[in-house]
Amino acid sequence: MADFAGFEPLNAKTLPQRLGQLPALLDTAGGPAENWQVREVGDGNLNLVFIVEGSAGTVIVKQALPYVRLVGDSWPLPLKRSFFEHKALTRQEERDPGSVPRILHFDGEQAIIVMEFLTPHVILRRAFIDGRQMPRASRDLGLFLARTLFRGSDLAMPPRERKEELAVFADNVELCDITENLVFSDPYFDAKLNRHTSPELDGIVAQLRADRDVKVEAQVMKHLFANKNETLLHGDLHTGSVMVTETETRVIDPEFAFYGPMAFDVGVLLSNFWMSYFSQSGHGERGAMQAYLLNGVDEIWTTFRAEFSRLWRGERNGILYQRTLFEDQGDHLGSEQALSRVLAEIWTDALGFAGCEMHRRILGLAHNADFETIDDSAVRARCETKALKLGRQLLVGRRHIHSVSEVNDLAEQLEKEIVR
Amino acid sequence: MADFAGFEPLNAKTLPQRLGQLPALLDTAGGPAENWQVREVGDGNLNLVFIVEGSAGTVIVKQALPYVRLVGDSWPLPLKRSFFEHKALTRQEERDPGSVPRILHFDGEQAIIVMEFLTPHVILRRAFIDGRQMPRASRDLGLFLARTLFRGSDLAMPPRERKEELAVFADNVELCDITENLVFSDPYFDAKLNRHTSPELDGIVAQLRADRDVKVEAQVMKHLFANKNETLLHGDLHTGSVMVTETETRVIDPEFAFYGPMAFDVGVLLSNFWMSYFSQSGHGERGAMQAYLLNGVDEIWTTFRAEFSRLWRGERNGILYQRTLFEDQGDHLGSEQALSRVLAEIWTDALGFAGCEMHRRILGLAHNADFETIDDSAVRARCETKALKLGRQLLVGRRHIHSVSEVNDLAEQLEKEIVR
Repeated sequence: MADFAGFEPLNAKTLPQRLGQLPALLDTAGGPAENWQVREVGDGNLNLVFIVEGSAGTVIVKQALPYVRLVGDSWPLPLKRSFFEHKALTRQEERDPGSVPRILHFDGEQAIIVMEFLTPHVILRRAFIDGRQMPRASRDLGLFLARTLFRGSDLAMPPRERKEELAVFADNVELCDITENLVFSDPYFDAKLNRHTSPELDGIVAQLRADRDVKVEAQVMKHLFANKNETLLHGDLHTGSVMVTETETRVIDPEFAFYGPMAFDVGVLLSNFWMSYFSQSGHGERGAMQAYLLNGVDEIWTTFRAEFSRLWRGERNGILYQRTLFEDQGDHLGSEQALSRVLAEIWTDALGFAGCEMHRRILGLAHNADFETIDDSAVRARCETKALKLGRQLLVGRRHIHSVSEVNDLAEQLEKEIVR
Repeated sequence: MADFAGFEPLNAKTLPQRLGQLPALLDTAGGPAENWQVREVGDGNLNLVFIVEGSAGTVIVKQALPYVRLVGDSWPLPLKRSFFEHKALTRQEERDPGSVPRILHFDGEQAIIVMEFLTPHVILRRAFIDGRQMPRASRDLGLFLARTLFRGSDLAMPPRERKEELAVFADNVELCDITENLVFSDPYFDAKLNRHTSPELDGIVAQLRADRDVKVEAQVMKHLFANKNETLLHGDLHTGSVMVTETETRVIDPEFAFYGPMAFDVGVLLSNFWMSYFSQSGHGERGAMQAYLLNGVDEIWTTFRAEFSRLWRGERNGILYQRTLFEDQGDHLGSEQALSRVLAEIWTDALGFAGCEMHRRILGLAHNADFETIDDSAVRARCETKALKLGRQLLVGRRHIHSVSEVNDLAEQLEKEIVR
């Protein structure tokens, strides 16, 4: 999977010339291509994204660039991440049908994925910043987590297939490297790419970086992230990777996909709900929105547990916790005892990952719009401080926190203590 | 890595014709090949092994067969395991120089590895059965464990290299499948390939197979085995995979090598020392030998800890527990705190794996000569019962056993309680 010498970035002018003959595009957008309206709208950190509007409809054209867009060509990043994104989207569609955008065309050499234009969907993070409650998101995300994580693992897959997928995604080295550094290491020392809302946060930042337990536990989480190759993860499941309407939820951008611990996707997602919770007071009077978000965490986890348990009972056909030893011996409780253990471990680890995600989004390179869109830096700093503190508690105390409501209570206490 | 149509098993007659022109063999054994004395001596479960004696010296020729030798051609097994064995031997030699036989020639298509003939080495298991104390074995094995496990992991390797190795060894599916089934599942139900010293063991076997905690914990260990892809394991590190003299130790037969949890190799090795301990009373008055074996476990673990700690302090150049966060910040204790955690987890998991290994060697397909060579089945059953009981305790109680001496005390209690 080398990068290709013939790679050319698209632009609004060349796109119709280059892609205008593809039946998949012409069918959906409608011809002729020279009449297409093309806008580049990529606001992420890595890629080009075009909206292509034709006479019959609209499509999205996503193209990877050979470097990190946020940083520039001083940070090269292989085009093959497009291959991993495409493969992950395909797997996610198999495992949770309807959960991702429909793929219309894939070109590995040009790192181009053409997909369904989602409308009237909005980015979930944007909705939260605007104070909009999206009624389906939490439930759908709980289902997405359970189905993709369970069905990509040794709980469900034939071992040869799972090991082959593990090997394929083990090549997504550079994207894993980003997470390994930006999430688990950089935030905990004075790394070059770090930045934070200054100077109001200097105190707590210094405190966290001097906190031995925080550093050790963050490294324990990194150890898990890098070495527990349990299932195919989305790899970057924050609220910016989710598009929603009132009735529908789609998960996008799985270019960080690789075989890692189930708890990572769970923890990152919950973390972004809690961060949104702490950001709300920076955007206005948001009592109802805050309650919605804490309730959302509860709904994600409850749905995840229920769906994971359903799959455990009905689709556990892999090599782990085989029926042969439990149900086939009439020992249903044995299988339930094992299920409790597995879920408890996912929960504990998810809290650790959630803590790291909170820290890195405030102290590291890539920040969250939830906080960034708060103009007053003193207000923003107070919101971020709460998240940093909760993050520390989750990371270091995770083994002794047993329910969502304990975390939500902690969040509410922090919200009261550190007032606007 | 498909198997090859041109594969031909060697025999004593064809071997000189087929390998007689290889410089590597001629140099070591001496020509002409038609004068070579060739004996097939494979007593393992899987392969052909020839001793080839020439005018100048002796070499070992090992050839994989396309099926499990112990079972017959009803159980096919790919020849490419020879590739994995060769690759693992190469890595082990890099990571712990002098710990494995010297490789003279490798032929992937014919699944042949030609290697140094070790003399006057004996199989460590054989020495233990004969009541011989081998003074170097434990220390050398502790070093072997620490060096190979540490240096094959993200603690030491560049992440791209480690992920590439992970992907290569992920293809060793069939050998992993053997462990996954024979170690972690079959012993815990009435599987077709199982056998045990009957009927004296029927009672405890039924007890173990009805023991829900045993079954759940064995599956937790299987989950770890299959999904914690931490380092390159030997994969079958019992005392039959070790050749020793009074002054030297060599580890052989790593065809089960793959990326798995560090604790697996540690646990399997300790388990085989404890099993040998319980077998001793079946071979005679063996008080001194018993003390030697328990002391040996202590020496393996103490040496492992010390060497692993030395490497942690001096060679921790990988992505895990980076110096940047600890030593480079003047926080030496932080790095020591992390080291304690990592070692504690290896210990706990090793006890779980040790428990499974004891059960499978007595209840599963592949038994240990330590017990098998005890002729009196009632005596043998009493020896095996002790091991089964210790195995249960280690597997289920591992989180609350913190030192070798606690396990050794347990072993001594069992030895006293269940008399010959």
